[in-house]
Amino acid sequence: MALKLAAVATVQSTSFEAVAVRENFEQNVRLIKELGYDGVELAVRNPAQVDADAIASAIADCKLQVPAIGTGQAYLEEGLSFADPDPGVRRGAVQRIKEHVVFAKRFDAQVIIGLIRGTCQNRDERNEALDRVRECLTECASYGGQHGVQLVLEPLNRYETTLLNNFEQTAEFLDRIKAENVGILADSFHMNIEEPSMAESLLYAGNRITHVHVSDSNREAPGHGHINFRAFVETLAQIGYDGFYSAEIVPEPDGKTAIADAIQHMRSL
Amino acid sequence: MALKLAAVATVQSTSFEAVAVRENFEQNVRLIKELGYDGVELAVRNPAQVDADAIASAIADCKLQVPAIGTGQAYLEEGLSFADPDPGVRRGAVQRIKEHVVFAKRFDAQVIIGLIRGTCQNRDERNEALDRVRECLTECASYGGQHGVQLVLEPLNRYETTLLNNFEQTAEFLDRIKAENVGILADSFHMNIEEPSMAESLLYAGNRITHVHVSDSNREAPGHGHINFRAFVETLAQIGYDGFYSAEIVPEPDGKTAIADAIQHMRSL
Repeated sequence: MALKLAAVATVQSTSFEAVAVRENFEQNVRLIKELGYDGVELAVRNPAQVDADAIASAIADCKLQVPAIGTGQAYLEEGLSFADPDPGVRRGAVQRIKEHVVFAKRFDAQVIIGLIRGTCQNRDERNEALDRVRECLTECASYGGQHGVQLVLEPLNRYETTLLNNFEQTAEFLDRIKAENVGILADSFHMNIEEPSMAESLLYAGNRITHVHVSDSNREAPGHGHINFRAFVETLAQIGYDGFYSAEIVPEPDGKTAIADAIQHMRSL
Repeated sequence: MALKLAAVATVQSTSFEAVAVRENFEQNVRLIKELGYDGVELAVRNPAQVDADAIASAIADCKLQVPAIGTGQAYLEEGLSFADPDPGVRRGAVQRIKEHVVFAKRFDAQVIIGLIRGTCQNRDERNEALDRVRECLTECASYGGQHGVQLVLEPLNRYETTLLNNFEQTAEFLDRIKAENVGILADSFHMNIEEPSMAESLLYAGNRITHVHVSDSNREAPGHGHINFRAFVETLAQIGYDGFYSAEIVPEPDGKTAIADAIQHMRSL
């Protein structure tokens, strides 16, 4: 199958582990192009602190698309989150995502809502936390709608957050927002832990899936673990998914090998 | 196959999530027996604070075996660990495991070394942390040897510790201890995340595997997720494993249903 493939590159230094290529953005974009990728997913902590013109120029030079912008660094490194009980923190998170929307618009990219939603350790407070996430996401979705930008909510495994781990929880959560510009992100690594059946979950979510992350069961390049990616892409084809497959993977054995292995495996399907 | 099956029961209240039955120990032991299990794995924080006679009596009344003692609560609730830079904390952890050895001897059970080994967030300090774990484990293994008690080291997924996530790391770590009474614990939930191929890892570890935990890909009862337990037990049979399969699972949809579903699935293989 002629899949559209992307690799994640960070434009700022990050403590997030699942980014194979981490240093020297322009060089990494060229490497991603040379390996045969069609796009680059950008991991950005704060759009206000990056040189958007230089980023756009490097990407245009390589004729790459930007399917999505990852935003989790703002949570990991600054603690911004939609679930935080402190209204000031939530305002900061919403403001940051609005800046991501403006940044994403330039690339016609989706804005990923992953770790930025936050978490809630206390089981008894989770519904309240989800209400806060819903309020923040509703505001961001509305802002995205005004700018013609799609958001995509990523179910994350239980160790990364207690809020929205699987497709069913995420779909039901989104049903109560009714924003047409918020999709679901299917990430194979998280799905391997949280979805009882990857195929059934993909069929369940159907055309709500607007972006896909591929990493194997051990978060390495597809082919390094035991996920059946042929079955995965066949099921996505069956539900009419025609977006990007973006390799969000750890740099094992090293970043360059990881993204080379990822595209080799995905092209072999 | 006539598998020997056990379910985990905690003898003290715990914050550890993967214990399906949590309250009223004697009632839970009877339930485990009535459901057809052959054994009960005991989760114990501190053997000095439990009534060992009452526990032994409840288990003897039900004619159940005790394949293993889980020790992770001492880490979760008291912070005891082999990896801790503080020698006082390490001494406390070693002392606690020695008490577990004496407790386990009474039941002819293995002592599980799981979370009690601790963790190390700083990548640059991991080798030193592993050296500390090795020193503590060597002392505990020697003590176990004197009492004729087997220890079993459990590879845990990356989110629970940074130290010893997969079989290969664990086998190489144990090679440097050369204690004949320390085996490897094969836990299907952790393996689904960390082992590139569950079958190959089982074949690699071979007769070093002395205990097995079964929980599905989502840590629920076998049958609730996507792990192929038939293939799992067939591979273990192939390497001559004849020990217990112990259900260490979360109480979903509730504890009783979870352990009933677990034995039903395992008996159907």
